[in-house]
Amino acid sequence: MAKKTVKKQATKKPWGGRFKGGADADVEAFTESVSFDRELALFDIAQSLAHSEMLASCGLITKKDMSEIHGGLGEISEDIISGRFKFKQELEDVHMNIEMRLAELIGPAAGKLHTARSRNDQVVTDLKLYLLGVSEEIRSRIRVAQKALVEQAEKHAETVMPGYTHTQRAQPVPLGHHLMAYFFMFERDAGRFEDCEKRMNTLPLGACALAGTALKTDPARVAGALGFAAVADNSMDAVSDRDFLLEFLAAAAICMNHLSRACEEFVLWMSSEFRFVSLPDSLCTGSSIMPQKKNPDVAELIRGKSGRITGNLVSVLMMLKALPLTYNRDMQEDKEPAFDTARTLAASLSLYGKLVRGAKFDKKRLAAAAGTGLINAVDLTDYLVLRGTPFRQAHEIVGKLVLYCVEGGKEFRDLTMEELRAASPKFGDDVLPALEPAAGLEQRKGPGAASPASVRKQIRKAKRILEREA
Amino acid sequence: MAKKTVKKQATKKPWGGRFKGGADADVEAFTESVSFDRELALFDIAQSLAHSEMLASCGLITKKDMSEIHGGLGEISEDIISGRFKFKQELEDVHMNIEMRLAELIGPAAGKLHTARSRNDQVVTDLKLYLLGVSEEIRSRIRVAQKALVEQAEKHAETVMPGYTHTQRAQPVPLGHHLMAYFFMFERDAGRFEDCEKRMNTLPLGACALAGTALKTDPARVAGALGFAAVADNSMDAVSDRDFLLEFLAAAAICMNHLSRACEEFVLWMSSEFRFVSLPDSLCTGSSIMPQKKNPDVAELIRGKSGRITGNLVSVLMMLKALPLTYNRDMQEDKEPAFDTARTLAASLSLYGKLVRGAKFDKKRLAAAAGTGLINAVDLTDYLVLRGTPFRQAHEIVGKLVLYCVEGGKEFRDLTMEELRAASPKFGDDVLPALEPAAGLEQRKGPGAASPASVRKQIRKAKRILEREA
Amino acid sequence: MAKKTVKKQATKKPWGGRFKGGADADVEAFTESVSFDRELALFDIAQSLAHSEMLASCGLITKKDMSEIHGGLGEISEDIISGRFKFKQELEDVHMNIEMRLAELIGPAAGKLHTARSRNDQVVTDLKLYLLGVSEEIRSRIRVAQKALVEQAEKHAETVMPGYTHTQRAQPVPLGHHLMAYFFMFERDAGRFEDCEKRMNTLPLGACALAGTALKTDPARVAGALGFAAVADNSMDAVSDRDFLLEFLAAAAICMNHLSRACEEFVLWMSSEFRFVSLPDSLCTGSSIMPQKKNPDVAELIRGKSGRITGNLVSVLMMLKALPLTYNRDMQEDKEPAFDTARTLAASLSLYGKLVRGAKFDKKRLAAAAGTGLINAVDLTDYLVLRGTPFRQAHEIVGKLVLYCVEGGKEFRDLTMEELRAASPKFGDDVLPALEPAAGLEQRKGPGAASPASVRKQIRKAKRILEREA
Amino acid sequence: MAKKTVKKQATKKPWGGRFKGGADADVEAFTESVSFDRELALFDIAQSLAHSEMLASCGLITKKDMSEIHGGLGEISEDIISGRFKFKQELEDVHMNIEMRLAELIGPAAGKLHTARSRNDQVVTDLKLYLLGVSEEIRSRIRVAQKALVEQAEKHAETVMPGYTHTQRAQPVPLGHHLMAYFFMFERDAGRFEDCEKRMNTLPLGACALAGTALKTDPARVAGALGFAAVADNSMDAVSDRDFLLEFLAAAAICMNHLSRACEEFVLWMSSEFRFVSLPDSLCTGSSIMPQKKNPDVAELIRGKSGRITGNLVSVLMMLKALPLTYNRDMQEDKEPAFDTARTLAASLSLYGKLVRGAKFDKKRLAAAAGTGLINAVDLTDYLVLRGTPFRQAHEIVGKLVLYCVEGGKEFRDLTMEELRAASPKFGDDVLPALEPAAGLEQRKGPGAASPASVRKQIRKAKRILEREA
Repeated sequence: MAKKTVKKQATKKPWGGRFKGGADADVEAFTESVSFDRELALFDIAQSLAHSEMLASCGLITKKDMSEIHGGLGEISEDIISGRFKFKQELEDVHMNIEMRLAELIGPAAGKLHTARSRNDQVVTDLKLYLLGVSEEIRSRIRVAQKALVEQAEKHAETVMPGYTHTQRAQPVPLGHHLMAYFFMFERDAGRFEDCEKRMNTLPLGACALAGTALKTDPARVAGALGFAAVADNSMDAVSDRDFLLEFLAAAAICMNHLSRACEEFVLWMSSEFRFVSLPDSLCTGSSIMPQKKNPDVAELIRGKSGRITGNLVSVLMMLKALPLTYNRDMQEDKEPAFDTARTLAASLSLYGKLVRGAKFDKKRLAAAAGTGLINAVDLTDYLVLRGTPFRQAHEIVGKLVLYCVEGGKEFRDLTMEELRAASPKFGDDVLPALEPAAGLEQRKGPGAASPASVRKQIRKAKRILEREA
Repeated sequence: MAKKTVKKQATKKPWGGRFKGGADADVEAFTESVSFDRELALFDIAQSLAHSEMLASCGLITKKDMSEIHGGLGEISEDIISGRFKFKQELEDVHMNIEMRLAELIGPAAGKLHTARSRNDQVVTDLKLYLLGVSEEIRSRIRVAQKALVEQAEKHAETVMPGYTHTQRAQPVPLGHHLMAYFFMFERDAGRFEDCEKRMNTLPLGACALAGTALKTDPARVAGALGFAAVADNSMDAVSDRDFLLEFLAAAAICMNHLSRACEEFVLWMSSEFRFVSLPDSLCTGSSIMPQKKNPDVAELIRGKSGRITGNLVSVLMMLKALPLTYNRDMQEDKEPAFDTARTLAASLSLYGKLVRGAKFDKKRLAAAAGTGLINAVDLTDYLVLRGTPFRQAHEIVGKLVLYCVEGGKEFRDLTMEELRAASPKFGDDVLPALEPAAGLEQRKGPGAASPASVRKQIRKAKRILEREA
Repeated sequence: MAKKTVKKQATKKPWGGRFKGGADADVEAFTESVSFDRELALFDIAQSLAHSEMLASCGLITKKDMSEIHGGLGEISEDIISGRFKFKQELEDVHMNIEMRLAELIGPAAGKLHTARSRNDQVVTDLKLYLLGVSEEIRSRIRVAQKALVEQAEKHAETVMPGYTHTQRAQPVPLGHHLMAYFFMFERDAGRFEDCEKRMNTLPLGACALAGTALKTDPARVAGALGFAAVADNSMDAVSDRDFLLEFLAAAAICMNHLSRACEEFVLWMSSEFRFVSLPDSLCTGSSIMPQKKNPDVAELIRGKSGRITGNLVSVLMMLKALPLTYNRDMQEDKEPAFDTARTLAASLSLYGKLVRGAKFDKKRLAAAAGTGLINAVDLTDYLVLRGTPFRQAHEIVGKLVLYCVEGGKEFRDLTMEELRAASPKFGDDVLPALEPAAGLEQRKGPGAASPASVRKQIRKAKRILEREA
Repeated sequence: MAKKTVKKQATKKPWGGRFKGGADADVEAFTESVSFDRELALFDIAQSLAHSEMLASCGLITKKDMSEIHGGLGEISEDIISGRFKFKQELEDVHMNIEMRLAELIGPAAGKLHTARSRNDQVVTDLKLYLLGVSEEIRSRIRVAQKALVEQAEKHAETVMPGYTHTQRAQPVPLGHHLMAYFFMFERDAGRFEDCEKRMNTLPLGACALAGTALKTDPARVAGALGFAAVADNSMDAVSDRDFLLEFLAAAAICMNHLSRACEEFVLWMSSEFRFVSLPDSLCTGSSIMPQKKNPDVAELIRGKSGRITGNLVSVLMMLKALPLTYNRDMQEDKEPAFDTARTLAASLSLYGKLVRGAKFDKKRLAAAAGTGLINAVDLTDYLVLRGTPFRQAHEIVGKLVLYCVEGGKEFRDLTMEELRAASPKFGDDVLPALEPAAGLEQRKGPGAASPASVRKQIRKAKRILEREA
């Protein structure tokens, strides 16, 4: 009989007592969140398992209540995983959907689960659990992408290509060096996510609506069960703030920025004009009207999705702007950007890793591109500096030689010793090797320089990092 | 038999000819758009009906082909409306889902529908049809909200309340005047959407992939059928640009900005501290833990969703940044922000209209709030200016009176003639009415001033506008 | 003697009467706006000239007052133009700087200028005057850029180049067609600015702090003098809203988006890999360390500045979010983004026009790029469709031919009739011309298609537009 | 004589050798950065001192060269500090302004300073030095603001006020608890800046244009001298990325978000409706037209400036989007947002600290506000739960009591025992104290709960943190 009453309640709003009229249908559709916060369902159940275990251990509910609650939640959990669970919009959010189903299954004990808890602390706990998991997954996908970069860098530690500034060929560099630049960018990204997790790692549960509770609870026990490092110091902070989400969204936007740059390069390098790389068919698509096309769609989409990730960050920054403490309904808008950014970044990282792994670089085209365009002008300048010409003067001399070559359609190696000596008497016969394209690579000695030796050193460091994480 | 072959083709990618390997499953999930672009399905069908009619009229397909196509599309249309249509992710997008289903239904004639059309011009045509419809709907919802404002303004043309600057009481104003301020903001919003439609109103179809076609087609006929005012002047512009979407998103962000301000006021006015208004239960919700609460959730959510709408604008601006012509796959990212903004703004406007209509203002509280705080200092200043005191000097005199009152805990009406004359000999006995709270409202004569007469004038203008639109 | 008193007042805050303590120095630096709003100085003076003329005509000040005010403002105006005027931070803003200087120059009459005016309506009037001027200037610079596009399009109506999708060569198009795509984008931009001006064109002056005034003024006279089309309908709307600025910032962001795409193409086309264009030295810069470099810095900076313009839009959207009516000090933050966007967009447009005008296109490279890569596959497909093959089937056939060519390293023109007939019996000898690169350009007949004839038609339309504006 | 030649060179562009035409004047104004990057001048000199010392220690320049360079830089440094230094726009940027002045002062040795350095690594080194300093300063200002919060929290550990959700009174809380919520938000902000510094702390100098150098240099020596923890692992990463700036801008945006919320509360609490707090005159301003006003301008401006800080973040995210490696001129756009955000956040934090310190809270108003509105409904609910009523049922019972009170215009304490027992037989006489407003504060036992004891515990923790930092 108890079950019946509960069932009747099951379609009531949890806050129905004070209200006389029924809710407007448009209002229901506008305010519901279960269409998206169901993503939190399993985290919500995990939380409720830990919470009810604590309530029982503190004597706030009986062992039997707890056992019934655990049984019911287990059943619900299975239904959710198998897709059988029916989420109902009229029950507003994931929390009420689960609690009402629990009431159907186990009766009055379900009504005790919400003891010493409010949706305000419940939802932020779920969101933290979700983001902690997601952030770790993202770091692991960063590692996979980094591995692919290291593998390619190893293959191409000595592959010469043009390094660019201003999308103009600037100096020859090893392809492996170019790729390792991304390794270090992603390394910092991983660090940002790790720091974000560290700061996120306090349990808000127990803050209740905003003020904590008079009941004798044990939040530390819940924190332990759920893997949080500590309990929030201040209940109003716990339910009010979403800075942990902002930090996550910002770290994602920065990481996606790196991906947008890496993918822009794949797009350029796949073009007929560059032809530096070919990507596997499985990562490209064709044209519905132009059968000769092989388009780098995956790289383009990753690049394009950087806009969305920044948009999500802006959306939450603006939503939170100037909200007085503590919880405001505006904050329901925190979830969709969180889920979208998490999914988008995770998928983008995986596919970027596949792009890197599947890329076939055209060594010949790369070398040819590095061998023209007077690209070794810096090497010539260094030659003069090493022989005592002040830098600015050396730059001026080589600048004039460049102009001379451009006007005569020549490369440096086409110059005679007379032409060189007319520019500077410091040029001796030993200049000739320096005129060869890409001659200077091995000469670069500084830490982090664009040389094969440096690339190998970077790879050794990278492997140590990856092993430490594994 | 032909049907069978087509069926076999139905799960192939439309660009499969050139490709040897199968697509990666992750890639399919990452690049598919049918999970969201199905929102365009009926527009896509409308387009195909007009397009095939034109192809037939130009002799590019037979009348029989057209008739089969129309029959098939009609059936698909019904299935979509009734929810029976099965969209398949492996068919990538809404266009291929419909075309492949058409092939199943009518066989080879389906293959002729894509004549003189590419997905590039097809999708942008769908998007424009969608936005043109949405923009008109939004304007109509703006009208409904404006009507609610006018109705309340009529009721409250003489209701006195404090006008605020810096969230400080500044001068008494009629509530109707405050409400009509929003009428004019929304009027400009409607204008922005109208201008946006005007500029959006050219047909891109016929641009094909980017270059138009050698086939003798008649795009003007399609434009006529679909209600476009003209055909695009340049095929590359037609498939490359999304400025019409940016303009729509920007108009929405501005309109949402207005809504965020109006809803902030509802939130404040509902607080225990203001208690200027009560909103119907149907537009509020309660607390799961604090039964005494009646929260302005709808107003809060509208306010909060302004972040999302700005985020959507940023996302498309950033996505389009620096994309070379013409179509790039990044541009698939244009649709979700478009749909989300359209839905969010439309729902927000409707619910805002209900908030306005359902609001019960507390005239007594409003009047009381307008009658304290030395709020008629400006009226005193005007009194002196009208009697020849230079403005800055009058301001200084009244400033000192204010300080005198603040220190003595008095209102102006508590001052004696001696106290007043000590401040300025210009004060005569006729100053007494000016010391009454809200005495000055009727005195304000300028166009658009905060007086009951001006409010009535504004309402007359507003009604003319709304009638013109009806 | 009066002058002395005024002088003594000159360093006081205009709102000093009520306040006892002095202002904090950090506060002064934080709240002052004269370091940037001085940009409005001449508009402020224009406004005060019109305002005082109206006050006199309404008998609120004497003719003599007016004449003194006009004399003083004239002198200040000259000082500002010549750079002699000393703006003082301690006077907070441009309005008080001018008014206090006026007081020094003409004594007590200066104190009457602020009659029936507040800084709230004053500043928004200045800002509108500024933006109306800026918007017109921007439209005129758009016209100059469009002219450059038309001139180049005329030279290159028949220059063949590859049209791109996905940064992949897709179909041959005339360079003039590609350039004219931008003409039409900028045409819509100009329309957006024009619509923005139209909506901005109402005078806020007379709204005073928020409520209008009891004094008998004549705002319509001021509107006439300053060139506004009408007077604001509602005083609270007049001082509260900044939607006209948001609309301006959004139009600028959209226009800058177009510029970012056009400049991205210049950057790509200047690369060693494309070499489609060379830009004049005066619009490029070199490298401090690599003398062979010629960098497209101007194009890069325009592209990069698109971020800033979007940032400015976001900044004002977020600043205005959820501000209750009417004026709030937050709104002082409206000016810097306005000025920065105006200056940046105006300069970017001018320099973009110079880039277009100075660009030297390499017809040979363009033609060569359009003659390879099986780029005329669509023409082959059209060939089959015109001979009755359903589109999807034709696409499949040509797709297989493409694969055949890619594997054999062939272009279409290398195929024998046998090879072609094996793919489809529909291929007759008349296919041979269609196999020539760029053969299909002249065949494209549709409106707006990528053909020389269409380009010439577009140019005729463009010239009519530009003449109408001149 | 050498000096003369250098002087002649001083107005040349550093990359003038390759170029024939002169630069366009508009181009100069568009591309120059010295109008803003002069902010980096002293960091640039510090870098050059360390760099030249290293060059001498490596034998790449003579000791005499170094000593001349140091002498010249010392003189320039003094001129910059004293404001005597003349920055010239035609010298483009801060680096060339200093180098050219150095050449005037010391002749040819100046030309050697740029050995083994490019503007690409030079500028990013300057920017990191700037941000490292700024970030530390911001953390120290956070500490000052936190101290003010702790001081006020100590004074108000027992001051009762309403805690809010949805801007509705929800439960009574200690004011000190509310204030300490911000302490912990700022604590996380400080942590974000610290992590950002940690990641930023690698020296890019030595990367030169992008590839490092063949000269035997010793970057570790420079890193040591400038206080960097390490040398960049990859030269291309070093000059390409600006993720350290993005991270700084994001940390600032999050911190500013907290400030926007705290300041919104000051604005509300200063209103006539709340009157919870009064702020010192020195942190407020008055109205030019309404002498009775005292406006919370500083709080409003901080709130409003949150828009600008988010705008700056968006601007750099969008600017960097899809830029291929390595340096692109777009990246010059990184500096203005960096400077603006640093200055704005630093000033906002200082002034926020003053707001907190200067705030005078009205204990009576706060207590009165906490004593009405059935705000202790949760305490009643807890009463029932502690006596065995399941939570949901207790909530329903109290909800009905609330409705009963609202309809009868009563507070809980006005209810008779009969009325209470009609609602639930569990109510005994011991319920009476729980019906007193704010009775429940001391009962809240959980960690972080809204009780005086918890506030004192938080304060102890806070003091330990602040001492550790001091």
